[in-house]
Parts: sequence; C-alpha cells; structure tokens
Amino acid sequence: MNRLFFILMLIGVPLSIVGHVLKWNDIMMFVFYCVTIISLANYIRRSTESLAAVVGDTVGGLLNATFGNAAEIIISFFALREGLNTVVISSITGVVLVNLLFAGGLSILIGGLRFKRQNFNVFKARHNTGLLMFAIAVTFVLPFIFAKRMSTENMHFLSTAFAIVMILLYLLALFFKLVTHKGAYVGEGEAQLETEKPEWSMGKAMLILGAATVVLGYISEKLVGTIEPVGNALGWSDVFIGIIVVAVVGSAAEYVSAIYMAYQNRMDVMMEIAIGSTVQTAMFVAPVLVLVSWLYTFLPLVFNTTELVAMIIAVLMTISITNDGDTNWFEGALLIGTYIAMAFCFYLI
Amino acid sequence: MNRLFFILMLIGVPLSIVGHVLKWNDIMMFVFYCVTIISLANYIRRSTESLAAVVGDTVGGLLNATFGNAAEIIISFFALREGLNTVVISSITGVVLVNLLFAGGLSILIGGLRFKRQNFNVFKARHNTGLLMFAIAVTFVLPFIFAKRMSTENMHFLSTAFAIVMILLYLLALFFKLVTHKGAYVGEGEAQLETEKPEWSMGKAMLILGAATVVLGYISEKLVGTIEPVGNALGWSDVFIGIIVVAVVGSAAEYVSAIYMAYQNRMDVMMEIAIGSTVQTAMFVAPVLVLVSWLYTFLPLVFNTTELVAMIIAVLMTISITNDGDTNWFEGALLIGTYIAMAFCFYLI
Amino acid sequence: MNRLFFILMLIGVPLSIVGHVLKWNDIMMFVFYCVTIISLANYIRRSTESLAAVVGDTVGGLLNATFGNAAEIIISFFALREGLNTVVISSITGVVLVNLLFAGGLSILIGGLRFKRQNFNVFKARHNTGLLMFAIAVTFVLPFIFAKRMSTENMHFLSTAFAIVMILLYLLALFFKLVTHKGAYVGEGEAQLETEKPEWSMGKAMLILGAATVVLGYISEKLVGTIEPVGNALGWSDVFIGIIVVAVVGSAAEYVSAIYMAYQNRMDVMMEIAIGSTVQTAMFVAPVLVLVSWLYTFLPLVFNTTELVAMIIAVLMTISITNDGDTNWFEGALLIGTYIAMAFCFYLI
Repeated sequence: MNRLFFILMLIGVPLSIVGHVLKWNDIMMFVFYCVTIISLANYIRRSTESLAAVVGDTVGGLLNATFGNAAEIIISFFALREGLNTVVISSITGVVLVNLLFAGGLSILIGGLRFKRQNFNVFKARHNTGLLMFAIAVTFVLPFIFAKRMSTENMHFLSTAFAIVMILLYLLALFFKLVTHKGAYVGEGEAQLETEKPEWSMGKAMLILGAATVVLGYISEKLVGTIEPVGNALGWSDVFIGIIVVAVVGSAAEYVSAIYMAYQNRMDVMMEIAIGSTVQTAMFVAPVLVLVSWLYTFLPLVFNTTELVAMIIAVLMTISITNDGDTNWFEGALLIGTYIAMAFCFYLI
Repeated sequence: MNRLFFILMLIGVPLSIVGHVLKWNDIMMFVFYCVTIISLANYIRRSTESLAAVVGDTVGGLLNATFGNAAEIIISFFALREGLNTVVISSITGVVLVNLLFAGGLSILIGGLRFKRQNFNVFKARHNTGLLMFAIAVTFVLPFIFAKRMSTENMHFLSTAFAIVMILLYLLALFFKLVTHKGAYVGEGEAQLETEKPEWSMGKAMLILGAATVVLGYISEKLVGTIEPVGNALGWSDVFIGIIVVAVVGSAAEYVSAIYMAYQNRMDVMMEIAIGSTVQTAMFVAPVLVLVSWLYTFLPLVFNTTELVAMIIAVLMTISITNDGDTNWFEGALLIGTYIAMAFCFYLI
Repeated sequence: MNRLFFILMLIGVPLSIVGHVLKWNDIMMFVFYCVTIISLANYIRRSTESLAAVVGDTVGGLLNATFGNAAEIIISFFALREGLNTVVISSITGVVLVNLLFAGGLSILIGGLRFKRQNFNVFKARHNTGLLMFAIAVTFVLPFIFAKRMSTENMHFLSTAFAIVMILLYLLALFFKLVTHKGAYVGEGEAQLETEKPEWSMGKAMLILGAATVVLGYISEKLVGTIEPVGNALGWSDVFIGIIVVAVVGSAAEYVSAIYMAYQNRMDVMMEIAIGSTVQTAMFVAPVLVLVSWLYTFLPLVFNTTELVAMIIAVLMTISITNDGDTNWFEGALLIGTYIAMAFCFYLI
C-alpha cells in the first residue's frame, strides 16, 4: 500500500512541476495535483505517527490534531486567500459526509463481509459521537438559526466566539483523552494497546514531515488556481468542487487506512479514523479556518440548509449504528445507501 | 378472535356486493367495505403465514413483504388510478403514526398492565429502529429539503431513484435477517423459536390467499370510489381520509395481533409487528407505489411539513422507548398520549 | 449552606418591605427582591421535603410537584396578571436551558473533578429523558408547526387541550414512579434509599411553608412591578429578563443542591434535581400557567424558533451524555460549553 503512494509521489511531484511550468491543460494538471496531494498526505500522516510514537501521547495528540488534516488545512488556506469561501465551507460538509457515510460505511461493509459481528469499545465511540453532536447541533445549527435575526457584524462576532469555544473544547477533549482519563474506559479483557514502534527515526520523520508539507503547500496553491478554470470547463459548481476536491483529496489516504483496519477487525482504530477525524475537522479545522479567514474575507461558519440537514442526518445515522458497540455488513450498506441518496440530491440541485 | 373475522367476512362480502348493485347509501357502503376489508386482510395474513412456514424463511420473508401489506397496496393502487395521490401519501403517514404510536402504545400499555416489566431483544429492536431512522430521516426528509431547489423533472427523477435505493436496501435487510445473520443476535437464555406449524396446508393456503386477494381487490376498487362522495358528505379532507381509511383499515388485523402478543408477553413478536411492519410500509410499500404511479399521475415521495414532523416525532419517541430493551405501562401511555396530541393537531388544521 | 439562606432572608425581607414603602431606586429594589426570593425558595423546598417525609411518598410527590417550583409559579402568576406573557414563556425556556446545561453541566463538572467516573441508574435517567423528549418534541414542537396553519381560536383550543394532556401524563408519571413501579428499577447492589428523617416536625413545616409562601407572594408581586422600569433602565428585553429573572431566581436554591449532590457522588439525586425538575417545569408548571392564563390574557404554549431550537439541542445533549449511565468532568464541560454558546446567541439577537 505504502509502495503505491511512493510511486504516485515519484511520478506526481515532477509531473506537477513540469506541467505547471509548461502550462499544460488545466484539467490534466488538476488530476496530477490531486493524485500528488493524496500521496503526500500519506507521507505526512506516517511521519506524524512516527513522531507521535516518540514524543509521547500528549504532544503526539497535539501533533496529530495539527498535521492530521494538514492537506485539508493547507488547501483551504489557499482557497481562502483566493476568496473561494464557498469551496471551503462546502469542503467541511464534504469531509463530514464522506468520512462518516462513505469511508465509515465502506469500512463497516468490508469488515462485515469478513467477520459476522465486529465489536468495539462503546464508551470511546460514544465520546466521539457526543463531540460530533456538539459540533453539529450546537456550533453549526445555532448560528444557522440565530444568524437570520442578527446584524452581519454581530454574526461575525458570534462566529469568532464560537470558533474559540470549539477550539478550547477540542483541546479539553484531548486533555481528557490523553491525560486525565487515559485508559479509564478500556473494556474488560481488552488489552491496553502497547505503544507501536515508530516507522521512522525522529530525525527522518521530521525531515519527511517538513519536506512533504512544503511540497504539499506548493502544489495546493497550484491546485486552488485551477479550481475556477476546471469548474468552468466541466460545469461543476463551487459546492460540488468543495465537496469532492478538498474533502476527498485531503482525506483519501485516511480512507484507505480505515478500510484496512476494519478488514483486520481493529474496529476501535477504524472508528477513531472515521469518526475521530470528523470531530477533528468540525471542532478544530473548521474553527481554525474561521480565525485564519480574518486575514482575507471573513468566513462565518454558516452553512446552507441542504448542507446542514445532510450533516445532521449523517450524524444521526452514525449514532444509530454505533450506539450498540456492534456492527455488521448491513449497517455498512445502510450508511453507503445514505451516502448514495445524498449524492443524488447534491447532484440534482 | 379468528372466528370474529370469519363472521365479519361472511356478512361483509355479500352485503358489499348486494349493496353496490342496489346502489345503497354511500356512507353505509363505505362502512361495509371497510369492515369487509379488515376481515379479508386477516385471511391474507394467515394464508401468507401458512405458506411462509412451508416454503422456508427466505421465500417466506419475500411473501410476507409482498402480501403482508396487501390490503394497503391494493387500496392505494386503486386510489392512484383515481388520481387520489393526496390520499395515498397521507395513508403512508397514517400507517407510520398508527403503527408506532397507537398500536405500539396500546400493546405496550396492555402488556404492561399485566406484566411489571417486559423485555425484548434490544439488537433486533435497534435493527428495526435503525431502518426506520433511515426511511424517515434519509428517504423522507432529504427530498423534502432538496425538492424546493429542484426542477419538477429532477424531483421526479430523484423520487424514482430513491424508491429504487429503498427497495434494494429493504431486500438487503431481508437477506441480512433471513440468510447471513439468522439467529446471530439471539440473546443468551433466549431460545431460538421453533418454526411454527402452519395453520393451513399449502394448497388450502394458496387457495384462500388467491380468493381473498381477488375479493379484496374488487372491494377496494368500490371503496376508493366512495372516498370522494363520503368526504364531501361528512366534510372530511383527503388527508384525514388517507390517515384513517387506508392506514387503519389496511392494518387493523395486525393491530389486534400486536396487542394479543403483548398480552402474552411475546414482546419480540409484538415489536416485529408494530415496528417491522412500519419499516415495511416506509421502505417497501411506499417506494413500490412511487414506481407504480408512473402508470398514472406520478407520486413524488414528498410529504408536507406537518406530516413529516409528526413522523419524525413518532420515530424519536419509539427509539427513546425501545432503546433499553424494556417496556412498562407508562411508556405505552406516553406513546398513546403522543398519538392523542397528534390527532388533536391534524383534526384542527 | 442553610445558614447563608437564613441570613439572606433575615436581611432581604425587611429591606424589601422598607424599600418598597420608601420608594427606593428600582434597580436596587429589583436586586433585593431577587435575593429574598432565592432565600425564601430554600425554605419552601425544605418545608415541602419535611412534609413529604411525613405524609408518605404519594402525597409527598404531589406536594413536591405543587410546591417544588412554587417561586417560579408565583412569579409567573403575577407576570401573567400584568400581561407580561413574553416574560413567562421565556422563563420556561430559561428554566430548561439553565437546569439541563448550566446546573446539570456544573454539577457533572464539579463532581467529575473529584471522582473519575460517576455512575447513576440509567433506567431512571432514561425515564426522565423520555419524558423530556415527550415534553419538548411533542408538546412544544407540534403546536409550533401546526399553529401556522390554524385559526387563533383553534390554536387556543389546541394549547388548552395539550395542557390538559400534559398534566394528566405528568400525574400518571408520578403514579408510575411512586406507586406501581416504586423500586422496580433499582440496580443490583444499589440499596433502596431509606426514607430520610424530616428536618422539621409536621406542624413547624406547615407553618414555615405557609409563611414563606405568603411572603414570597408579596415580594413576587413587587418584583414583577419592577420588571418594566428595570428593563427600560438597563436596556434588557422581555426575553432576556424572562430567561434570567424568573428562571434563575426561581430555581437558584435547587442549583446549589444539585452541585452539592454531585460533589458527594449521589448522582441519582443530582439527576433527579437537574432533569426531574426540568420535566416538572415543562409538563406541570407550563401547562398550569396556560390554564391559569385564561383568567387574564391567554398564553398559548408557542415558543419562537430560537427558543425552541435551543431547547431541542439542550435535550439532545442531555440525552447524549446521560444515555450510558456514566459521567465525567469533560461531559460537564461540554454541557457548559453548550450553555455559553447559547448565551452568546441570545445576547447578540
């Protein structure tokens, strides 16, 4: 698997640079950029994990929070700079829907085809779905409802205040998970996982992390530059590009991990990737982007009705399926069915 | 109990035919038709169960899916042919509300007056409520939200696509329950139920099924013909008739079974009748009617706000009450209270 | 703790009377009235508990239902008489939000700082959250949705009918808890609590209850008279005063108890105070006020969108956190974070 990402990177990076210099066709370059970013995101993830294994859980958790969605943050940063706020807000919706329904559903389906019933720690799953419900119901729904009765100025103040509250609560959640309640919810008979051996030494990991991030930044900037011409050429809307490009490209490497973990019956890790990373996007990436957007055009965290309803339904389906600590192939199929239904809806408006 | 349905049929069928020929008063005929259909639905249910016991679970499950709501499907079919689409869509709402709140609530109340606490298999109940949530939240709410931003043509395409996705998922759910995970969620100490002895031989069951279906079809057609004159005479709206006539008349025989099962403390069977048959209506009957409606005036699966909110609340109350695998009389009273509150609302608009 | 309330009462009552006669500044008097009411509410609660311990659970439960929210009912009564219906309806919202999110959250947070994990009886908690869901989803949401399609006359009829249904179900819930299912849901190893020794003798309790209620009535009337001048002087809206004054002042004594119980790890009692008293407000106090309002200007139980959404979110967060029978400090922080987010919203509109 990692070999594939290595080859993709080996081909993608030079092609991206050469193609940009020689001004190749926009659509072709768009594809090259996407593939390259997917491969680089894999390197960032692995170097972050190697560092996390060395520096201990607390700093490691913070590292993960910062670099775990590096590709998404970097692409969104350039999109904000270009004033493509619609793309950014749609990409948050996209990550929530794709993580929970498509990646989560596919993992549960594939794992369930191999194992009749797959169990996971229901306390940890509920901790994550509780955070999800907070993120969606409180920090996404409230501004949507109240924004209509507010001046634009107050609405911007509210978005900023909410962003700060969310980041604080996300840091508290890390503190809870890694410090005060580490291991407090380990089930009986469930061994505390040993710290895994890091893949790379600390120096090598930092070198790879730095290099991959710099190259990712360079290519993300180019990618964002092609969004408008590609959108015009193919007739795709900003919303559609946001949901597809930033959401899927930024997280594709994670989806592969989630499915692999489910196939190995390591459902707790799979849940952490699928649900935990959605929490990270909603409670850390989104508010950081709101704060960063003060530099350019302010990005209030106000979704439109269709995006909001789709996210609420995705969270409710996830809660309904993970609430009993047990999954099977049909529950995966139900999540994918939900994803397909939503894809129809977004495609037809 | 079955004797009562026998007598009702013996009186109802000839009266319905004679009355139609002699052009008796519409309201009187309306009552005769309803009573006759209730009695015939009982025969269809019993012959289907006899056949199911003979042909094995898989084919039996499909038989049940097809004939279990035969009365509802047949009445709706004639209503579609007459262009009474409002009646059909309201009848789906009616079945959801009456099954979950009235039949479910009354069963739990009556069972709870006899037994202090009644237990049931929480995995099976959650499987059904998960399907309910999918049916309501995904396939009913999404079209409602997105339809406003779509052309009529796209909306018809969406309804058709959703109908197909729902039928496929319903068949997958049957496959899951009857093939891959048969008995996988049986609780400890809970014996796998032995296959019950069929009431009738295969030949007799097929004969009764055929005869009852034909007569039911004949009477349903007449019944639909009286809906408009009766509505005008009594001042009832299409919505009200849909919620009462098709919903209650089509399922009355089932309600009697549900209450009887609760009284005997067979709560798993009761839940399967009350909740499972709601799932069947939402995920099988409704989409089939959408597909059939292509023959006449297309029936998009778009409910109005009041119907949708009422169904969402009914599902939430059901989940809240069944989620702990334990019921008592007060929970039944709460469901009936919800039903009464809704009846007030629908009566007053 | 009780000594503090004694001192507050000793200072507050004479100052309130003297200040009113001498026509002191409105804002100062407003503060005196609030403090005095908080201290008197403490006496009403304690005398009610003493009486309840003597007269047995059933009558005691009814006493609690009637006098447990005496301060809130009395203030609301005078507000209704003055035609301040907006204040009354907002105060119901305020009690729900403050009880569940602020008092509940602070109790769970403080208890969680002392104990790693706090357990409570999940059946009792679910009984209460089930009632909450009924109160909010059925009796608050339905009129909101249907009122738009109804004449004012029908809407008033609906509100009255709902009020009666709610009071009946609340009495049934008491009957369930105190008579038919007393002790039926006590967990294993969890001792049935012995009846506590009453603090005061029956005669003394009745005397204190009578005296405190009379004085509370006198001061509540004066307090309501200052609402408009204070609102004008400080620029506070009716909604804000409703959420703060009536909600917090009327229940402050209870909040102290809830936090104290959590600190002592008596989570079942804490849940009963925080959630049970919210149920009481929604299912008993609110409908009683609706019925009483026939004497003055009718108060239909129709909230505005922002109030309704805030209450729905508060209930969902409570369910999400109490559903596993286990709390920790982070869950308390999440509830308080929700409360702070809502406070921002209501402050900015």
